[in-house]
Amino acid sequence: MPTSQQLEQRLLDLIMDINAVDVHSHVPAHEPFARSLRDLLGYHYYTELAHSAGMGKSVLDEPDEQMIPALLEAMERIDNTVQYGWMLELARELFGFEHDRLTPGNWEPLAEAVRHAASEPNRARDILGQSNIGKVFLTNSFDETLDDIDTELYVPSLRADTLVFDLHKPQVRENLERVSGVTLKGGESLKDALSAVVEHFWAHGARSAAISLPPGFRAYRVADADFNREAERTLTGSGGGDRQILQSGVLFHLAECCRQNALPFQLMCGVVRDAYSHGVPQGTDLPAAGHSLRGLLPLLNAFPEVTFCLSVLNAGQMQELGAYGWIVQNVVLSGHWWYLNIPAHIEPDLAARLQSVPKTKLIGYYSDMYKLEFGLPKFNMYRRSLARVLARRFVEPGYGTEDDAAGVARLMLRENAVRIFRLDEE
Amino acid sequence: MPTSQQLEQRLLDLIMDINAVDVHSHVPAHEPFARSLRDLLGYHYYTELAHSAGMGKSVLDEPDEQMIPALLEAMERIDNTVQYGWMLELARELFGFEHDRLTPGNWEPLAEAVRHAASEPNRARDILGQSNIGKVFLTNSFDETLDDIDTELYVPSLRADTLVFDLHKPQVRENLERVSGVTLKGGESLKDALSAVVEHFWAHGARSAAISLPPGFRAYRVADADFNREAERTLTGSGGGDRQILQSGVLFHLAECCRQNALPFQLMCGVVRDAYSHGVPQGTDLPAAGHSLRGLLPLLNAFPEVTFCLSVLNAGQMQELGAYGWIVQNVVLSGHWWYLNIPAHIEPDLAARLQSVPKTKLIGYYSDMYKLEFGLPKFNMYRRSLARVLARRFVEPGYGTEDDAAGVARLMLRENAVRIFRLDEE
Amino acid sequence: MPTSQQLEQRLLDLIMDINAVDVHSHVPAHEPFARSLRDLLGYHYYTELAHSAGMGKSVLDEPDEQMIPALLEAMERIDNTVQYGWMLELARELFGFEHDRLTPGNWEPLAEAVRHAASEPNRARDILGQSNIGKVFLTNSFDETLDDIDTELYVPSLRADTLVFDLHKPQVRENLERVSGVTLKGGESLKDALSAVVEHFWAHGARSAAISLPPGFRAYRVADADFNREAERTLTGSGGGDRQILQSGVLFHLAECCRQNALPFQLMCGVVRDAYSHGVPQGTDLPAAGHSLRGLLPLLNAFPEVTFCLSVLNAGQMQELGAYGWIVQNVVLSGHWWYLNIPAHIEPDLAARLQSVPKTKLIGYYSDMYKLEFGLPKFNMYRRSLARVLARRFVEPGYGTEDDAAGVARLMLRENAVRIFRLDEE
Repeated sequence: MPTSQQLEQRLLDLIMDINAVDVHSHVPAHEPFARSLRDLLGYHYYTELAHSAGMGKSVLDEPDEQMIPALLEAMERIDNTVQYGWMLELARELFGFEHDRLTPGNWEPLAEAVRHAASEPNRARDILGQSNIGKVFLTNSFDETLDDIDTELYVPSLRADTLVFDLHKPQVRENLERVSGVTLKGGESLKDALSAVVEHFWAHGARSAAISLPPGFRAYRVADADFNREAERTLTGSGGGDRQILQSGVLFHLAECCRQNALPFQLMCGVVRDAYSHGVPQGTDLPAAGHSLRGLLPLLNAFPEVTFCLSVLNAGQMQELGAYGWIVQNVVLSGHWWYLNIPAHIEPDLAARLQSVPKTKLIGYYSDMYKLEFGLPKFNMYRRSLARVLARRFVEPGYGTEDDAAGVARLMLRENAVRIFRLDEE
Repeated sequence: MPTSQQLEQRLLDLIMDINAVDVHSHVPAHEPFARSLRDLLGYHYYTELAHSAGMGKSVLDEPDEQMIPALLEAMERIDNTVQYGWMLELARELFGFEHDRLTPGNWEPLAEAVRHAASEPNRARDILGQSNIGKVFLTNSFDETLDDIDTELYVPSLRADTLVFDLHKPQVRENLERVSGVTLKGGESLKDALSAVVEHFWAHGARSAAISLPPGFRAYRVADADFNREAERTLTGSGGGDRQILQSGVLFHLAECCRQNALPFQLMCGVVRDAYSHGVPQGTDLPAAGHSLRGLLPLLNAFPEVTFCLSVLNAGQMQELGAYGWIVQNVVLSGHWWYLNIPAHIEPDLAARLQSVPKTKLIGYYSDMYKLEFGLPKFNMYRRSLARVLARRFVEPGYGTEDDAAGVARLMLRENAVRIFRLDEE
Repeated sequence: MPTSQQLEQRLLDLIMDINAVDVHSHVPAHEPFARSLRDLLGYHYYTELAHSAGMGKSVLDEPDEQMIPALLEAMERIDNTVQYGWMLELARELFGFEHDRLTPGNWEPLAEAVRHAASEPNRARDILGQSNIGKVFLTNSFDETLDDIDTELYVPSLRADTLVFDLHKPQVRENLERVSGVTLKGGESLKDALSAVVEHFWAHGARSAAISLPPGFRAYRVADADFNREAERTLTGSGGGDRQILQSGVLFHLAECCRQNALPFQLMCGVVRDAYSHGVPQGTDLPAAGHSLRGLLPLLNAFPEVTFCLSVLNAGQMQELGAYGWIVQNVVLSGHWWYLNIPAHIEPDLAARLQSVPKTKLIGYYSDMYKLEFGLPKFNMYRRSLARVLARRFVEPGYGTEDDAAGVARLMLRENAVRIFRLDEE
């Protein structure tokens, strides 16, 4: 075995021993692992890829005995993808699956193994143990209950999308009034309600706010009079007006709440929602080339005390984001999001981050998963890319020793997240 | 030899044995191969690179004895490029050329060899045999004769650029009336004429339509009344009006014709025509960064039954295109176009495609050539990149075995094209 | 050692022997090297990275005894970066530093070594000798003295930014009148003044003009009447008007002056000035994704006789720039600017340039340095990347021999610059 591969393997062994923090997921705290194989195969990566490869959408409405074989038959056409590899790796590592393909002919024992495992005590803890993941951030709607969350395993996080983009919906306003205890009349009451939500989250152990933004989103400081006028218009349901003013105003106030509560704000930049009309559920959004992050600068500049953890969805912004991490003190680079979450995009981006951004400002990875089982193959994919890049782009060119590389890996997988989100303060 | 290179070589051996389909070229069916060395050296890659490196354009107007030495002298300054390598490889493989540079001192025997080979019987078939290419798509103007095309070797394809962008030119309208047998009066007659053209192509063995589009082109569904108004304005030559409405309307109707005839539509996205004022012929167009593909979404969404084979010209859209292939059922990723057709761009893009797009939706490569001789070095360049990426980014990281890799290569070089363009239905 | 690494090492040995030309720096001719360690650590890369990693800005106002340890303490958090590596390499090579980190505990002997070296005779020449750099271009303000510049070591270059963007400032106009001897009244006098400046520079050994431009800058030919009107408005300080007209007009006239004096024009494209409000000095500018270079085409097309040496700041434009170098005769690709000046960005870009741009149109590298000491580690970083790319992407795939690779390296590091800037004509 050539030297590079040996070095890579040694680094991977060290990296596999690091207990990771997963700063962004969609795991439901009260239903965190799969009860059935369908819970795993229903992950949008499989339904969207199978549909993309020609499977009819109606398959997804069928009962397991029809749906699973039909989906697996279509999945033969995606067995080249890393996503297919995730399923095999978790099936092997978590459920003892031994074949090298999952087919209409061999899924039933796996389905039984998933059902059986789900009934084991401490299942969530076991999965995280096998995955060597210490904590998993959740993504909680503002109006979702935060009671009875096991905060030894999970860290709640306020998802701000609805608050910023959906206040024109009466149901959202109604829920906001209920959760905050504030009657929404105008701009001031809206700010009070938002503050109450953030404090409520903080009190229940939340350690970040998070939002996904469309490509080229412009965040700017809104004058009070403008904000109050648009808030009143929207809160009274009178329609019209300039939605951007309200959106920016709410976003800025949420950042102010983050400042007051010392909460980092995770910004996930660049998703075009509902771009593909015929997609499966959760399989309709796309990235867009041709946009800059500079629309966010007024927000980043206005809150130097708030740490913004940025992710992008478009490869054309990876270097721009790197430059932000390089000079902007309150910007942290976080993970490799969604369409960029494949080694072909992770590795060059990772090499650039390692060469030009302070090592304390890199949150290596998050899973974005909906069920805990996916943490294992996703983090392992990243761990292998990290070992490869540290070996070939860091140790071999002489930027540091193997020990240095291991130290960087510990920061990226665990220590930076612990420090930035203050996970050791309880 | 290290393991990676051995693996790469084994895969390359397998790949070289795959009989490829070339889904896009500009080969003239009745003059498909070079009659002279000038026919080869006149390829715009050589004239534009030599001109770029300082050669005066007037050289191109001289007779062979002056033009060829002057061009070759300038080509010393481009001997680092892959394009220069194409010329050497085809000279060596197809004409027995034995030097490692083509110079003013050694071109004459090669010129003689080209002339001599041109007079051999079955020359086209021989070239394709040596290149291991089974079928070559043509790019046919709507008003070009399709008679006497050897459809064992060639597949006609309707080039739609003129129909979409040039209807304001009287000559184009006149030709369209002649070919379609429809008198152009308004929107309905225009649609009839377009339908007649597509059916005429289909009847003559055409298996696709193809168009190149400017960066950021917006395709949107046009209301009938708007289309009819703009069509009438343009067809009567009254000028003015909104050219975009007519362009989108024609493009949508052509897609409708593709739907009716089950023809895939090849969209080649992002060329700025006539950008460089002083370029040699065919050497004046450029890519442009800073644009998204999302302007095409209305078209992709409107015709879910039409397969759109997309190519881009701007590296900043490679990842965006990958995401389209990943979730949009009717999008196929096709080749590596023009300025992206060099290994430095092909290989990272290919790695990403292999990791995230269904293997049945990848058309690996097309030559874009004007003479058959270039199929050999262009496809061989791609085959080497494919072997390299399959070895290092697919087999080595464990996404599949060597056999799996060979299967993927067969899909990408041949089988996907055969299925998508229905080349086995005759 | 595997073959690739041996080949890379052989090429690196050859490359290290090439006496390089540095076509862009900010070295002050009369204070070219560091007098103190602070002169080195004060380079914005260290202050901005340390600040980005959490250091307070006020540290920079403290005396050495406080500032240096505080900065070095913050720099522990950036020891993963290539910039940190530059400091270690120059400390080792130029000042005999022997530790593998520079810390609050070991900086004092280095500081002493810097002070001591500064007092040696021929210090500038010695540094350049150890760096194997033959000539260093300066970047001179139009109103700066050019007397007593040692033109054996330095090549003056006119920085045009102020002339294009700051004529609305009375001080700039006053200085322009003084330097040119022309009284500024309207468009014609402004052109006369600009011409006088360029001739003055040419007479003092300047061999280029240079300007940095914001992303998406549009340069277009301005009608005389428009130019005269805007010039008068600006020169008389009456305000209002369309600043873009004046900017484009001045830029075009400077290009005309370049044409008349056969001066290449270095265009550095894509910097957003003052983007980050809280940055340290020189640490507030950023790149922006989402823009094209096509706004420059009118300028490139208007002056086919002027060589434009282009650099970009945004990775999304690297391929677009490559295409310009490929077909546009008067475009030369120059270096890897600022945020792109790390191996992770240099190497893929370099591979693409080598595969598709005439070798005579590639200026490999410039340092952009403020003190001569940084030429050594910056050029060495590039030399290592060049050796790596030539080995793995040029020699190994068979595009050329080791000798060919060495020849390309000589062009890129020295000979192209000598020819393009006519450095051998004196």
